[in-house]
Formats: sequence, C-alpha cells, structure tokens
Amino acid sequence: MRSLPASAAALCALLAAAPALAADPLPLWADDGAQAKIVAFVESVTEEGGAGYVEPSRRIAVFDNDGTLWSEQPVYFQAVFALDYLKAQAAKDPSILTSPALKAGAAGDLEALAATGMDGLLEVIEVSHAGLSVEAFQDRARDWATTATHPTTGLTYAQMTYAPMVELLGYLRDNGFATWIVSGGGVDFIRGFAEAAYGIPPWQVVGTRGNTEWDPATKTVMKTGGATLIDDKEGKPVGIAQQIGVRPILAFGNSDGDYQMLDYVTSGEGPSLGLIVHHTDAEREFAYDRDGHIGVLDKGLDDAEGRGWVIVDMKSEWSKIWSGE
Amino acid sequence: MRSLPASAAALCALLAAAPALAADPLPLWADDGAQAKIVAFVESVTEEGGAGYVEPSRRIAVFDNDGTLWSEQPVYFQAVFALDYLKAQAAKDPSILTSPALKAGAAGDLEALAATGMDGLLEVIEVSHAGLSVEAFQDRARDWATTATHPTTGLTYAQMTYAPMVELLGYLRDNGFATWIVSGGGVDFIRGFAEAAYGIPPWQVVGTRGNTEWDPATKTVMKTGGATLIDDKEGKPVGIAQQIGVRPILAFGNSDGDYQMLDYVTSGEGPSLGLIVHHTDAEREFAYDRDGHIGVLDKGLDDAEGRGWVIVDMKSEWSKIWSGE
Repeated sequence: MRSLPASAAALCALLAAAPALAADPLPLWADDGAQAKIVAFVESVTEEGGAGYVEPSRRIAVFDNDGTLWSEQPVYFQAVFALDYLKAQAAKDPSILTSPALKAGAAGDLEALAATGMDGLLEVIEVSHAGLSVEAFQDRARDWATTATHPTTGLTYAQMTYAPMVELLGYLRDNGFATWIVSGGGVDFIRGFAEAAYGIPPWQVVGTRGNTEWDPATKTVMKTGGATLIDDKEGKPVGIAQQIGVRPILAFGNSDGDYQMLDYVTSGEGPSLGLIVHHTDAEREFAYDRDGHIGVLDKGLDDAEGRGWVIVDMKSEWSKIWSGE
Repeated sequence: MRSLPASAAALCALLAAAPALAADPLPLWADDGAQAKIVAFVESVTEEGGAGYVEPSRRIAVFDNDGTLWSEQPVYFQAVFALDYLKAQAAKDPSILTSPALKAGAAGDLEALAATGMDGLLEVIEVSHAGLSVEAFQDRARDWATTATHPTTGLTYAQMTYAPMVELLGYLRDNGFATWIVSGGGVDFIRGFAEAAYGIPPWQVVGTRGNTEWDPATKTVMKTGGATLIDDKEGKPVGIAQQIGVRPILAFGNSDGDYQMLDYVTSGEGPSLGLIVHHTDAEREFAYDRDGHIGVLDKGLDDAEGRGWVIVDMKSEWSKIWSGE
C-alpha cells in the first residue's frame, strides 16, 4: 500500500478522532438556543446505561399542528377548507344555503359569518365534515391541502409546513422516537395529509374527533356531525390518554391551547422536554403572541422559564420557514 | 480444513437445498386448517411485486381480546377484577356498600347482583374503575392479572392467554404486521397487561373507553366513571376509525360482538382475512357458541363460509391452550 502524504494522514487522524466534526443534526436550526437543548435531551435519553436513558418504546414525542408544524394565519387552514368546500357546493346548488351562516360563508363574508356565532360556524363546518365516510373525507382533505393555495404566500397549504419542524420530526425518529400529532384540528382532516407532509401515519394523529357511525350498507364508518372529543387545552391530555395510553416525554406547542399538554408531559417522573414555537417573524411568517386573534400565547410565555420550557424564536433560530419554498 | 464425513456433508447439502424443511411458522397450530390459510395470506401480502402485496405500514391486524386472545369463562375476567376489588375495599370499610348491588357484589352473590340490572353492574364497575389516574388504574389491572387466580385452572389470569394466539401475534409481527387489540373490554384494563402478555403496547389497544378528565392538581388524567365509547359490535369499526384511522387487513374474533369488525375489515378493496376462534374444547378450555351466556357466536357461524371467514376449531387445531401451563 502506498503511504499517504503526511498532511493527508494528519487530516485522517484528526477526522477519526474528532466527533465534534459530526454533521449538524438540525441544519435548519441555529446552533445555540433550542437546537442545543434538543440535541442534549436526545443524546441523554438515548445513551444506554446513562442516568437519563429511556427505552425506545417510551420515546414518545407529541406535537401540536396549527402554528407548530404548519402555519395558522390569517385563519386556521381547516376553516378555509370548510369555506372552500361550501363555496364549491353552493356554486353547483345554491339551494343548500338555507341559513344566514351558510349564506355568509359561501359569500366569503367572514364578518357576517362571525355574527352568527358558534352555531353558525359549526353549521359551515358540518357541510364539509359530515355525511361521508372517514376514508372519503381524508381523501377530500388531502386533495384540498395539496391543491388549494394560501392568499399571501401562494403556496399550497401542504407546502406551508415548517421545514425546521419536519427536519426535527425526522431527527427524533432517527433516534428511536415515535412522533405523534396532538391537535385541536380535526383528526381525519390531519390524517389526510400528515403521512406525506410529516411522515406521521394516521394512527399517530390525535385530534378533535367528530361523531361517527358504522354503516352496514356501505361497509364504511360515516362521519355524522358534531364532535365527541375537543382535543384542545385540557382535552389534549385526555386525547393522549385515550390514544397513546402512556405519558409522552417530549411536547412541542405554540399557544396556550397546548399549555395542559406541556404541563402533563413535563410532570412525569422521568426526563422530559417541553418546547414552544414563538411566532416572531412578521416578515417571513407572522408575528403574534399575547394578543393574537388565534394561537394566543400568554400564560405559556409567562411560565416557560419557571417550568424549563424552551421558547423557540422563529425569527432568529430558523434559517428557512416553509417546506415548499 | 478437515473434511466432513460424507454423511454429514450430504445432510448439510440437503438442509441447504430444501426450503420445505424450513421451521414450522406456527408450531402450536395444526398444519392444515387455519394455519395453512394464515400462512398463505401472509406470504401473499409480503411478496414484493406480487399481486397481493401490501406495504408494511398497512399490514394492520386487529384482535378481539376476551375469548380470542385469552379466556372469558365462566365470566369476563374484568368482572372478576371489579368484584375482587370491591370485596377487598369492603373488607377494609364496609360502609362503602351503600346499595343492594354493591352488597351483592361484595358478598359474591352474582344472582342478586344480576337482579339489580345493568345499573347495578355499572355501580360495581365504577367502584374499581373511577376516582384514580389512568396510570394508577393500569397498575391496578396489571397487579390483579398477574396475581389473582382462576377458580378452575388455578392459573393467574395473565397466564390464561392462548399460547397459539400469542404465537400468531409474534409471527405476524415478524412479517411486518402491526398487531392491535380491539376489545369490548376496558382499554386501560387491557393496557395494564397487554405489553407483557402479548407484546402489544398501550397505543395499540382500542377498547371500551371510560370518561376521563385532566386534573391540574395531580398532573394526571383521572378516570371519572361512565363510558365515552362502547367498543363492541358496531362500536368496533368506530373505535378502529377513531384510533387507527385506516381499514385493517386482518381481523380475528370469536363472537358476534366481532361481526361488524370482521365485516369492516374484509370489505376493503385490497386483500384481507377474517378469522374466528370456535370454542369447541370443553376438556381443555370451554365449549360454547350459539347458546353461550357470553361470547355468543351465532350469526358468525352462519355467515362464515359465505364470507370466506376462517373458523378455527380450538379442539382439533391447537396443540396447547394456556400460555402459562
């Protein structure tokens, strides 16, 4: 074997000896701040024999969706989906607009729709979310998320997932974690696109759950309207207990709707990590917290330091926002 | 290298050349009957490029628990658990017996308990199934299942899982399947022992689901009594849609309580397999079907042939019954 030049040999020795030169595990994240804390946590729970070791089956990470994995401005994307469907149906058959709420929704008059109150909003939701099978509804959600486009970014909604968060999901899975969504959004809406968008399969999605019934005629489970679980605030620990059945060890949210989930996950006996996306980037995304019309982050901001929850400053910590840009 | 004797060399050549000599995949099952159909199905869905191929993430198998994975005679084991707990509590504090149903239950007078109707039975269940956290309840169930013993076999209840079914669960997982329980029994009761007994983690258990509430004082999810999902009959497809979100491809039950689950699973577009345990072994287990006081199998027996569902004759097809014997 021909011997290497001395300089190359020295370089090889250096590379072999220097774990510090390992590839950046989260290249879209700033090196200090949240990334350092995430990596330290993951290294601790995966170190066999270490004091913080957690067996792979219990490495369960839960993520809010709206405002955490994808954007939620100017309104929850699922509301746009519902209105888009209502408009399309009304264009084919205006006689379906049997109430002031439905008329306002189909006209895109959000002020008039809001004036009809929660009952009016639910009426709009029902039109697009009931009277079909779970499978057909997931298809409807998938088609919409991958074709409809956002008014200001021009991207499809499925392209408006946060690239650093998708990267984080993969990093956690590479380290033996199971990644779950625990969202106030509709479970079947999210299931329609979560596998392609996030690598999260349908059975790892917990969400607000509509009523359903077995239909022996079509051999399907039909969505019948209304809801049997509101998976928000105190509903999030309940949804986790119902579907996961054990306490996760990592939770990531962005609003006070995630407070109880963070509280639950970081109050177990073993190691845990809580994180919060802080929307600070008016230029590339949106900037809002305590006074947001949705996605309000107030108590979480107050309590994060005392609880050891990590605030992720979107503007300074993420080098890229949208997966699809 | 020393050469082998001729006879040994011939044996080696034979072993290497003969796939037919491969180990029996399900040694506790008779070779013909259900085993042949299960193995043919598994080979078909796992054959890459084959017409029946199913990608690993969609190889989802659902199993009833009572009467399918473990025994259910002379009464559902969960009922024994509830009565055992009631008796133990009443021994410490008889003042808890505030109704005829609770008095009958604590006295072991099943006839008097039955006379109090469904309300009385629910009262007994509530004593053992409410007022504690999901985690504490799972521990209670685990302790009971691994220590209390059955009146006729003398085995612990956890030892009364069916060895051939536990073997089948492992065989399916070895072939890329995810194995789920979908039971009329309580989800947290089953989660207490399913991982040790079956290798099925808590998040792959669907069952009858009690009401729960987030308790910010103890940072736990508390069981508050009553039920929000009855996961039996038409409730089984609903429970599957809620927690799994896609249609499974293999279902295994034992009673008409599993009919809708079998119907759902075997009505999808792709390949599927439905199976039913038939309790035919009065000597080693129990024998009952159409006239059972629980676990009635009537319509399933009538329709199995027409639907292509495989009836498993316990007496002739299983060489062993109990995992713990």
